[in-house]
Amino acid sequence: MTQRFRATVAYVGAAYAGFQRQAAGTPTIQAALEEALRRVAGQSVSVTGAGRTDAGVHASGQVIAFDLAWRHPPEALLRALNANLPTDIALQSIALAAPGFHPRFSARGRTYAYRFYQRRVRQPLWDATAWQIPYDLDAPAMNRAAAALVGEHDFATFGQPPQRHAAASTIRVVTCSAFNWGAPGEICCYTITANAFLQRMVRSIMGTLVEVGRGAMEWETFAAAFAAVNRSQAGPSAPPHGLTLVAVEY
Amino acid sequence: MTQRFRATVAYVGAAYAGFQRQAAGTPTIQAALEEALRRVAGQSVSVTGAGRTDAGVHASGQVIAFDLAWRHPPEALLRALNANLPTDIALQSIALAAPGFHPRFSARGRTYAYRFYQRRVRQPLWDATAWQIPYDLDAPAMNRAAAALVGEHDFATFGQPPQRHAAASTIRVVTCSAFNWGAPGEICCYTITANAFLQRMVRSIMGTLVEVGRGAMEWETFAAAFAAVNRSQAGPSAPPHGLTLVAVEY
Repeated sequence: MTQRFRATVAYVGAAYAGFQRQAAGTPTIQAALEEALRRVAGQSVSVTGAGRTDAGVHASGQVIAFDLAWRHPPEALLRALNANLPTDIALQSIALAAPGFHPRFSARGRTYAYRFYQRRVRQPLWDATAWQIPYDLDAPAMNRAAAALVGEHDFATFGQPPQRHAAASTIRVVTCSAFNWGAPGEICCYTITANAFLQRMVRSIMGTLVEVGRGAMEWETFAAAFAAVNRSQAGPSAPPHGLTLVAVEY
Repeated sequence: MTQRFRATVAYVGAAYAGFQRQAAGTPTIQAALEEALRRVAGQSVSVTGAGRTDAGVHASGQVIAFDLAWRHPPEALLRALNANLPTDIALQSIALAAPGFHPRFSARGRTYAYRFYQRRVRQPLWDATAWQIPYDLDAPAMNRAAAALVGEHDFATFGQPPQRHAAASTIRVVTCSAFNWGAPGEICCYTITANAFLQRMVRSIMGTLVEVGRGAMEWETFAAAFAAVNRSQAGPSAPPHGLTLVAVEY
């Protein structure tokens, strides 16, 4: 009997063209998960994910679902799948889900973390998962700009809806947008939680906040850009390798 | 005029057969540094390092020295070398050194950190620089065993002198040997500082401490093994990818 499973997945995004399956031969997280399921189950199984992370973006708490007839405990399925996944992808937990559970449509919130460090020279031990920023950043200015994003707003400046839904709303509710500043030169982290995100939204916000932090964008300019609901007003996007999908709430 | 430079170097060790130069074609940190110097200086320059890190071992604070005629500020040399190094190696700082400065012989102490986490399933975002330990570890037992290593002792159980100096002393002075325990399932770190280390000493100590922590080696057995000054009494060595040379003191 087929049952719906829900699993939390962690991955290093560097080797993948994003979560979502693309043309055959393009490495994606979804394709790797479906291939592992095919090997374990001996049949084709479709995987859906909570967030379509971009190429190069990581996850520690991506949530997926799939339907499978499995006679053994879920823990045995987790071990079997992890044994059949590449080393840069691993299920963290697995459980039976309600039949109607959908990782994207059932989700009430997502949390992303963007890691970075302020140093003139790169630190190779951090570069896989953090963005080197060779400027001195104005932390109070960035805190102020980040806090301004909290609430229900039109985020059209920082992203667009999926292409198939070009007319869809760009209004989102952000419940957390805050920096965790490390010691000078150490790893810092920007965390943002929202009910849902537009495409490229976190990288666009992060890149714009860094423009504020390095003095290239005044507070007034930032506030006006946010209010303009115009994609061309955003700063350059931050690179994908600093970004991690850390949690999905249901 | 040739001057002696001293630089701090960080690297991800995964792609290298260790710090020390080996046969031509074998990738080593020393060879990569000397190649960058050759490109920048247009001549062959020898690099010496403070610690001969093993294959796969990382560094955030390796110290090197080399002699070079350089007319520009040292900062310009740092930038030029980093531009000519692979992305997994980067100089962190550079300065002129006293003519007699030797990174190994002048060093008074070295500090290594060993990162690990206790989880049944691997976490790909951590696996480049931390050891997954799928057991529950007894932290108080490991703290006690680690503390017993502090002081001047014969560490022959945990390593041997370099092959060329097989008859050399195995007595070392450990000034710090302690665990920093993270929250359950999070990254933990074992830090050890000594005047010098034997070959493989930190990995042998770490592997043995984990035997204590998972209940495979009683305290009395650990104490007897340490006192036996006999290499065969140690537990299995911990893997290299959790280990980082973090500092060299002069």
